[in-house]
Amino acid sequence: MKLVRYGQPGREKAGILDQDGRVRDLSGIHADITPELLAPEALSRLRGIAPESLPLVDEGERIGPCLTGTSKVVCIGLNYRDHARETGKPIPSEPVVFMKATTSISGPYDDVVLPKGAEKGDWEVELGLVIGQKAQYVAEEDWQRYVAGYCVVNDVSERAFQVERGGQWVKGKSSDTFCPLGPWLVTADEVADPQNLELTAEVSGEIMQAGSTSEMIFDCAHVVAYLSRFMTLLPGDVIATGTPAGVGFARNRFLKPGDSLRLSVAGLGEQRQQVVAHEDRRS
Amino acid sequence: MKLVRYGQPGREKAGILDQDGRVRDLSGIHADITPELLAPEALSRLRGIAPESLPLVDEGERIGPCLTGTSKVVCIGLNYRDHARETGKPIPSEPVVFMKATTSISGPYDDVVLPKGAEKGDWEVELGLVIGQKAQYVAEEDWQRYVAGYCVVNDVSERAFQVERGGQWVKGKSSDTFCPLGPWLVTADEVADPQNLELTAEVSGEIMQAGSTSEMIFDCAHVVAYLSRFMTLLPGDVIATGTPAGVGFARNRFLKPGDSLRLSVAGLGEQRQQVVAHEDRRS
Repeated sequence: MKLVRYGQPGREKAGILDQDGRVRDLSGIHADITPELLAPEALSRLRGIAPESLPLVDEGERIGPCLTGTSKVVCIGLNYRDHARETGKPIPSEPVVFMKATTSISGPYDDVVLPKGAEKGDWEVELGLVIGQKAQYVAEEDWQRYVAGYCVVNDVSERAFQVERGGQWVKGKSSDTFCPLGPWLVTADEVADPQNLELTAEVSGEIMQAGSTSEMIFDCAHVVAYLSRFMTLLPGDVIATGTPAGVGFARNRFLKPGDSLRLSVAGLGEQRQQVVAHEDRRS
Repeated sequence: MKLVRYGQPGREKAGILDQDGRVRDLSGIHADITPELLAPEALSRLRGIAPESLPLVDEGERIGPCLTGTSKVVCIGLNYRDHARETGKPIPSEPVVFMKATTSISGPYDDVVLPKGAEKGDWEVELGLVIGQKAQYVAEEDWQRYVAGYCVVNDVSERAFQVERGGQWVKGKSSDTFCPLGPWLVTADEVADPQNLELTAEVSGEIMQAGSTSEMIFDCAHVVAYLSRFMTLLPGDVIATGTPAGVGFARNRFLKPGDSLRLSVAGLGEQRQQVVAHEDRRS
C-alpha cells in the first residue's frame, strides 16, 4: 500500500493510492495516517479495503507529510562511504546518530524555507524507515518486524548552523521545512529489498546525488537494532538512514532562493520543492 | 501555581498543590497538564480556582512527569563556567545545543534505569523552562512571554554512550528514564528571579553539585531567543538550561545500581530517584 495525506497543513486527512496512482480518500475509514494505523494488525485490516472503492481526491489538493504523530526523527550521519569521504571525515566505526526537531517535518512538495541568516542550505536524499511497533533492544534479524514502511526523506541542513556555530549538529537540522517526508508511506511488503534502492537528488536541473542504499555502511537491520539500544523507538518514529555523496557542502554549492529540488528513492516516489527565503515564505 | 500529575505511567491525571503542599485533584476541570493548558489565557482561568475547593489526592499516588505532550526536550550543554571547565572543554562562544528523546521523560521519583551495557551513568541537575506559547525568532527582551513555568530536570547521561561511541551526544542522553521532570511545574509568576536559584544534586548522601542559576554563561533570555532562531518551540517543549560543576564524569564517580539521587532547584521542589540496573527494572 502507498499511504498518503492530503489537505492543508495541520488539517490533513488519510488517503491511499489506487492502482492508477490516484489518491483515494481513506478518511472515512481512518481519519489520518497515525502511529496506531502502523501496527501490523491495523495495516492487515487496511489491506482488505480496495482503494478503487473509495472516493477520488481532487488532484489539486496539497499533499502533506506522509504520516502524523512522529515523536522523533532520528538520523544516521555519514552512513555512505562516499559521503563520509567527501566530508573529509573518517568512516565511522559505529553509527553516528543525531536528531531533527519534529517541527521541521513538512510535505514533499512544500517550499523549503531558508531560515533567517542562512548561508549554507543543503540537500540530502535519504531512505526513511517508519517504525510500526515499539522497539527496544531489537535483535538485528528481527528488525523488519518493527518497520511498517518506507518513505523519502530530505534531510535539509544548514551547514553553517550545523558545524560553524559550536557544539552539536541539531542546530543546522531543525528549522521548519527541513524535513520533507513522502510523498508516500510505502508499506514494507511493497519493498522487496530496501538495501537495493536507487536514490537521486537534483538541484535546479542538475543531478547532484545518485546512489544506492546498497552502499550504506550500516544497513537498515543494524541501524534499527543499534538505535533501539540507546532509545525506545515508538510507532510513527522516522529513521533517516543517511545520504550518499553529492551534497552541496562538498561542492561548495549551497541552496539559494529560487532553486528547485527533486529527490527520489526508487519505488517511494519523488519529492519536489522550491527553495525560498524566510522573508518570502507563504505561511 | 504548582501543577503536578499523579497516577500510573501513561494514565496520569492533572493535580495542583494547595497552600499546605498537598496534591489536589484538578482532573475534573482539566484532565491532564497538556500544552493547551500552558497558554497564558488557560493559566489565567486556572488561577481563578481555589485548590482547597478540589478533592485531596491520596498521598500514596505516584507522581508523574509534571506535564505531557512535550514535542521536544532541548538541552544546553556546558552552560555553567565551572562545569565547562571541569569537562576540560573551552567556554562556548555560543550555546551548545542537543536533544534528548522525549521517550526518556519520567517521573521525579521513578527509578533511573541504567540501560544494558551502561558503564558511566551520570547526573545533571538543571533548571527546566517549559514553553507556553509557540516561539519563533523571539527577541531576548520578550522571552518571558513564551515561558509558562519552570521545573527541575535531571539530565541523566551515559558518558560512554555520549562521547566514546562516535558522533553526537544524543546516544548518551536518550535512554528511558533519563529525563525525570518535576515534581512540579511551577508557573512563571511564582519564580521571582529565575537567574538566582540554588541547584543541588546529592548522590547516595554526598552533595555533588551545589550551584546557582546566576552562574549560567547564557541566561534564560538568551537561550530562548537563540533556540527560537534554529527551531520552532511549541507549547509543552522543555528546555534544560545546563548544569553546574560536580557531575560524575569530572569525578570519575559514576552511577551504580543502589545509588540514590536527590536533586533540587530552589522553589521548584526536590526529585528523588533510585538507580537500578536494566535487568532489575520494575516495568
